[in-house]
Amino acid sequence: MNISEIIRTKRDCKELTTEQIEYFIKEYAYGNIPDYQVSSLLMAIYLNGMSEREILDLTITMSKSGEILDLSDIPGIKVDKHSTGGIGDKVTMVVMPLVASFGVPVIKMSGRGLGYTQGTADKLEAIPNFKVNLEMDEMIRNVKRIGIALMTQSENIALADKKLYALRDVTQTVESIPLIASSIMSKKIASGADKILLEVTCGSGAFMEDEFRARTLAETMVKIGNMAGKETIGVITNMNQPLGRFCGNALETMEAINILKGQGDYDVVEVCCVLGAYMLKMAGVGGSIVENMKVVQEKIDSGEGLAKFEELVQRQWGDTRVIKEPERLVTAKYKIPVVAEESGFVEKIEAKNIGQAVVNLGGGRMKKEDVIDYAVGIEVLKKIGDKVETGDTLMYIYANSEEKGKEQVEFLRKSYELTYEPVKKLKAILDVVEGV
Amino acid sequence: MNISEIIRTKRDCKELTTEQIEYFIKEYAYGNIPDYQVSSLLMAIYLNGMSEREILDLTITMSKSGEILDLSDIPGIKVDKHSTGGIGDKVTMVVMPLVASFGVPVIKMSGRGLGYTQGTADKLEAIPNFKVNLEMDEMIRNVKRIGIALMTQSENIALADKKLYALRDVTQTVESIPLIASSIMSKKIASGADKILLEVTCGSGAFMEDEFRARTLAETMVKIGNMAGKETIGVITNMNQPLGRFCGNALETMEAINILKGQGDYDVVEVCCVLGAYMLKMAGVGGSIVENMKVVQEKIDSGEGLAKFEELVQRQWGDTRVIKEPERLVTAKYKIPVVAEESGFVEKIEAKNIGQAVVNLGGGRMKKEDVIDYAVGIEVLKKIGDKVETGDTLMYIYANSEEKGKEQVEFLRKSYELTYEPVKKLKAILDVVEGV
Repeated sequence: MNISEIIRTKRDCKELTTEQIEYFIKEYAYGNIPDYQVSSLLMAIYLNGMSEREILDLTITMSKSGEILDLSDIPGIKVDKHSTGGIGDKVTMVVMPLVASFGVPVIKMSGRGLGYTQGTADKLEAIPNFKVNLEMDEMIRNVKRIGIALMTQSENIALADKKLYALRDVTQTVESIPLIASSIMSKKIASGADKILLEVTCGSGAFMEDEFRARTLAETMVKIGNMAGKETIGVITNMNQPLGRFCGNALETMEAINILKGQGDYDVVEVCCVLGAYMLKMAGVGGSIVENMKVVQEKIDSGEGLAKFEELVQRQWGDTRVIKEPERLVTAKYKIPVVAEESGFVEKIEAKNIGQAVVNLGGGRMKKEDVIDYAVGIEVLKKIGDKVETGDTLMYIYANSEEKGKEQVEFLRKSYELTYEPVKKLKAILDVVEGV
Repeated sequence: MNISEIIRTKRDCKELTTEQIEYFIKEYAYGNIPDYQVSSLLMAIYLNGMSEREILDLTITMSKSGEILDLSDIPGIKVDKHSTGGIGDKVTMVVMPLVASFGVPVIKMSGRGLGYTQGTADKLEAIPNFKVNLEMDEMIRNVKRIGIALMTQSENIALADKKLYALRDVTQTVESIPLIASSIMSKKIASGADKILLEVTCGSGAFMEDEFRARTLAETMVKIGNMAGKETIGVITNMNQPLGRFCGNALETMEAINILKGQGDYDVVEVCCVLGAYMLKMAGVGGSIVENMKVVQEKIDSGEGLAKFEELVQRQWGDTRVIKEPERLVTAKYKIPVVAEESGFVEKIEAKNIGQAVVNLGGGRMKKEDVIDYAVGIEVLKKIGDKVETGDTLMYIYANSEEKGKEQVEFLRKSYELTYEPVKKLKAILDVVEGV
């Protein structure tokens, strides 16, 4: 077996064997195949695709290329949740304590933010002293004690995926469904949960901009998960505008607390309830999805979700006073309005620009080493379907540098498209993909 | 401008601008773009193709990336001839002196053999003392004096192509028509001839196995040449079996001499006359192709072609006694027959295997550094359409190691496919592509 033959096979649109996929991943991880051969193979995969069998083999092989976590010490069905990333997506911070408040064990391994999407670990670190770098045994102790823990993902999970991702990033082969699906699922499978709930974002603020591709990605991952013996469900959410009202680390944490207090905007609350309902069902708790959505909402109304969130913050060394006094979260010096220069109905929002503006303000990373300013961000007042009069505030920019803040104003104003005709509000949930 | 954008453009099946092509070639040649990005671009080009404009830009940019030869000192129209490579293709050695015998200046820069095809420079070096590493001024002096010179191609021609070819070779992106066409034509354009005659081989012993691809390659190169201001004609020749009777360096040189003596097999003589006729026409000599074929044949019959060949050998320090005494060319120790084990008509010959057998015997290079055994090779007695009885000799193997020779017997026997029905002999010339 050799890499030339493997490249040629995929170049000629044929199926790679299990042995060929294992060979390529192992030898590449060991440093026995040069980058220039693998990048040529990656482009062939990008352009010619992969069968489900190939994607499954790739996923399994990559999941075995690093540490495989063992959560069997924790009793009960462990359901992992993963989002493909979006703008203002604070759902994890809300859903996790809600589900845990039912007595379902919740373990969340979260990535750091990179590019225009932020990570849950960063958002929670906006709470003074909150510690996300837990050791495995500490995490397991916490789950046994309070039923919930959130930690940064181990650096040693799916090592081959890490190496491959770095190469994809510089060879324009990131946006390939087989490669995205195997990358995500290899990490999820190695992370030890029993079942996997996927939030597949779709729209101008997501990786998958059109619904067909989002659905294909969701279906692919659901199939791969089930074939790998882990029940997997995919919920396709609308990311054609930011989810909820705030974007930026501390601002989103504050908003998550507000949602748990029953003060959330309709769209983000709906997504939290739907995802929570599926997680409960997968964990064998409650009844139908409609019934589960109702009981999840009740946990908001009763304050039990918020209480569990407070327990989590306390257990992970965070300052729990932020829950009653959100001003203890770092706040930005400047609040700059973005004002509408015409009237009409909001037809479109270039959601990626909002994520980009947060990064421009210092609230995200362009490189792994960048330091984040937790305080900065955007508050979105007008969303798709809203009526706007000239002079209305579309957004607020929260900045620590007045100059940087003002630089974003035009950029953000241009991210709105208005029209004369009334526009329908967006559905927050586009579809659910189960056991295809 | 950056390479990521260039890769993305081609990945998404869009056309690269002239500036993008110049940027990519120059920066890669200067070492400013890593191999792993270029190999991903090469695979995208392989799978998504290139427009004629892109191929022309790539060709011109590569031709400028090294030395550009100036042949303007030599009076008359200089016609270069290039073959895409084949098995037993000794045409250059025959056509060049024939054309020179008309007073047309003949300058041939020849590559070395690599893989299963051999190069003219190697074949002529089978003549004791023949020197192919001429300096430019020596070459020009020779052409002015005797009207003909053959030298190895300068190492400094089209440097970017050299670097790119090495990468294509290890990333399975060799067999791409835009990349083959630009690689060949960039070198031809930089070599300074006024016009270019291409011998595009097609069949089981050629790079282009099917006629559609061979025709596409020929048409592409003819267009590129003409667009670059050099009249170009492509002759598509049949390489579904070896051309003529012998394969191997000294054996082919001997056969070339025999052809010039009027003792050549019909197929190879026909190809030589057609190519010679087109070269004359391009040089503005003679009349129609049919008339020119006749006068070329006359130069064989009159011995003027052979006399010019002798002049060439003498001028380049070779031992001219080989012309009358071909046994002075090195000869192999063992002559091993490959015998037919069944009877029938030859339907198919896996011509590539014959080239491979020559390499296996030591007569070719797998790596640039390999030393060639000039004496070894294959004599092909039965060709497509020939009737074979059990026990007939299909081929002779000329080997210097009895063991290596015997190892090839089964391999070569299996390269023949026989059938009960009579089979038509092959046409040697498949098509001619002019000014498309």
